[in-house]
Amino acid sequence: MALPDALLHDLSALLGPRLSTSAGERALHAQSETLILSGPPDAVAYPRSTEEVARIAALCARHMVPVVAWGTGTSLEGHALAVKGGITVDFRDMNQVLAVFPEDMLCVVQPGVTREDLNTYLRDTGLFFPVDPGANASLGGMAATRASGTTAVRYGTMRDNVLGLEVVLAGGRVIRTGTSAPKSSAGYDLTALMVGSEGTLGLITELTLRLHGQPEAVSAATCAFADMAAAVDCVIATIQTGIPMARIEFLDPASVAACNAFSGTSLPLAPQLMVEFHGSPKGVAEQAERFGAIAAEYGSSGFLWARASEDRNRLWKMRHDAYRAILASRPGASAIVTDVCVPISSLAQAVEETRADIAASGLPGPILGHVGDGNFHAILLVNPADPRETTLAKSLATRMAERALQLGGTITGEHGIGMGKLPLMAAEHGAAWAIMGHIKRALDPHDLMNPGKLVPQK
Amino acid sequence: MALPDALLHDLSALLGPRLSTSAGERALHAQSETLILSGPPDAVAYPRSTEEVARIAALCARHMVPVVAWGTGTSLEGHALAVKGGITVDFRDMNQVLAVFPEDMLCVVQPGVTREDLNTYLRDTGLFFPVDPGANASLGGMAATRASGTTAVRYGTMRDNVLGLEVVLAGGRVIRTGTSAPKSSAGYDLTALMVGSEGTLGLITELTLRLHGQPEAVSAATCAFADMAAAVDCVIATIQTGIPMARIEFLDPASVAACNAFSGTSLPLAPQLMVEFHGSPKGVAEQAERFGAIAAEYGSSGFLWARASEDRNRLWKMRHDAYRAILASRPGASAIVTDVCVPISSLAQAVEETRADIAASGLPGPILGHVGDGNFHAILLVNPADPRETTLAKSLATRMAERALQLGGTITGEHGIGMGKLPLMAAEHGAAWAIMGHIKRALDPHDLMNPGKLVPQK
Repeated sequence: MALPDALLHDLSALLGPRLSTSAGERALHAQSETLILSGPPDAVAYPRSTEEVARIAALCARHMVPVVAWGTGTSLEGHALAVKGGITVDFRDMNQVLAVFPEDMLCVVQPGVTREDLNTYLRDTGLFFPVDPGANASLGGMAATRASGTTAVRYGTMRDNVLGLEVVLAGGRVIRTGTSAPKSSAGYDLTALMVGSEGTLGLITELTLRLHGQPEAVSAATCAFADMAAAVDCVIATIQTGIPMARIEFLDPASVAACNAFSGTSLPLAPQLMVEFHGSPKGVAEQAERFGAIAAEYGSSGFLWARASEDRNRLWKMRHDAYRAILASRPGASAIVTDVCVPISSLAQAVEETRADIAASGLPGPILGHVGDGNFHAILLVNPADPRETTLAKSLATRMAERALQLGGTITGEHGIGMGKLPLMAAEHGAAWAIMGHIKRALDPHDLMNPGKLVPQK
Repeated sequence: MALPDALLHDLSALLGPRLSTSAGERALHAQSETLILSGPPDAVAYPRSTEEVARIAALCARHMVPVVAWGTGTSLEGHALAVKGGITVDFRDMNQVLAVFPEDMLCVVQPGVTREDLNTYLRDTGLFFPVDPGANASLGGMAATRASGTTAVRYGTMRDNVLGLEVVLAGGRVIRTGTSAPKSSAGYDLTALMVGSEGTLGLITELTLRLHGQPEAVSAATCAFADMAAAVDCVIATIQTGIPMARIEFLDPASVAACNAFSGTSLPLAPQLMVEFHGSPKGVAEQAERFGAIAAEYGSSGFLWARASEDRNRLWKMRHDAYRAILASRPGASAIVTDVCVPISSLAQAVEETRADIAASGLPGPILGHVGDGNFHAILLVNPADPRETTLAKSLATRMAERALQLGGTITGEHGIGMGKLPLMAAEHGAAWAIMGHIKRALDPHDLMNPGKLVPQK
């Protein structure tokens, strides 16, 4: 679709060289970390202020042109692809930490700030922002996809850590949601509605985020189990005992093998838990002791402690590199990364059935995840030149999601819907999916905000 | 308004004697714990199943008759008053705990179960439901108003502890929101939208709730401070240090005096903090020691520890009786109870300015609250026979809310909007309030679900 000349003229007048229609810029914004494909947007805009974003939305509405938000492009389900063309709004230049309120343990940031940049900025304040999806994603994108990651078991997801938003709605109206108070019961929770809305209700232009105190003491460990069920039962017992785990991650033997090869570690090739404790020095010691006792009951072995910060950093770097490690384990392969989340009592069953299904397919597909949340991933490795393998991987991912639903879970714990999971929304939500469509149309009647995503398509 | 005969006929056929149009039943459902007044509903229905609720909603929609949910009637802002008549749906008979899943730390309940009933039911499971607004409210009502209370600082509010809902929408459609997985990023967070929607989007017919492990050890204490600012600074330092306070409550000297008189305690007549620690025996001891050290830095005195459970129960009974104690401190008075929530750094200022404003009015108005959340209440005592006092109290409450907004806070931390706070919604939300109206109309185009509440009125 060609953009109307009048729109291009007005956007150029607004943004100057910060509006690009070059093939190169457009192609960069048609990339995805996955095999999901889409044509490029018609133009890319790099606004510097809420006012500019609002003007872009207003101009696009006048010409009925779609608007799609772009953070760092690390989505795993094609959220930010302009499937109906239009203007991609790249928040690269809205990357300022606007304010930090240490007493209130809050900060206000623009959407293009990444989580690592924020934590670097906070380093000397004694505070940190805990949500850690692995990728160094933008905080606007993390809010839009309701991201979580390794620390959600202790600190919650973006749902729990976004206190307020500024949002540009379709047509350019600007609203603020939430306040700086820790809680409120004043009306509909528009903050929670926007978090996870994947750009379909508006463009996030500012976030008020909860911060947490940097723990005085931290300790981490890995330990091996005879089988998956023993590892999961250990996790259930640990959580029930109320030990405030900061992280509790699972790696299957295939993931362990890939990590060992990539990161030079030598973990035993068995189901592994990776755990971390945060607290006072005494508190961490007590937590570790209690966890150790529970793990021993479930037959753990090969406990490796990482108490020094360099050892911990090496351990979590290995975990964060797991995706690349697994990708490297099949040279030339592309990955279809999929995630589901189930009630923790069903986790062992869900993982075991998924493992068996993957094994029967013949594709390599290591499994790992945030086991304290019941959330796990399969990284399905396919030969991109062989479309049969991609089809096979997609059917494995679909069965994994359907299995999660049968067990009372969800088709995605943290990656979101994007394009990849849209066909599964009806199965998860039933009649409630239509209600999402009603809300979408109430806020965006002309379907201009990230069209083609999340709600039922006409 | 008289109900159409056809509607009465169909509802009677559905419910038999569980539909009442008696003046007595109707008058009971026009009562409120506050001075907010409304006429009665035209009839009261006592459904026993989701199917019956759906049929009631469908029949009412056919005749364009309003539907209002009723839990235990403990709202402080007139949420459940049928201001436009219609059918009040009383959930008294939907009071079953449907399932408890200990491994997943979840339960499924009907909306009429009260929080105390649930905790009695859970007593032998090692689990409990922590949200504690004081009143023995129904869990459906607590979800509808996004209730919180003394333990929110540790365990969160209803926003954090409702994982999923079954909701009957206008016209009788039934949807389910959320899953039993601990987290999800699958589409709009309809659970969060429904929590706090005060019956204006639908009737909650089932709740999936998060449970928490009963703490192994509990310890509580009171301590006095020279002034409000010292008490609040102690709270800020405590929270920043990361001590996982289970409760941290503030009472001003007037509240202390009322509690002493009512409960036979003898706390010093000074600003008091009431604190509670949950954890392992060692953990509780360490938390208490660390809190004691911080409190000492801020000049605390008169530490009274309540380590035995009977002592703790006496302490929290005194706190829960504070409302009645304060009411009893002015014989014959009625109370206007109001709440606001501010960023904790502004709490001392907000409380001090409120105290001065109340003092200047000449009305008695003790202040107390959930200081760890920045949430506090004033209980304004008026002579119900003197309308000037009521007017004066309402203007104090309005100024308290406006002050909270100026400090970055919210007009209500936990009591909700109901009828009392509706005139303040525009000031808090600006353009976002209209968006709430769009959402309301998308789900309830004929304004039949608790009309007259929460959204802009035509």
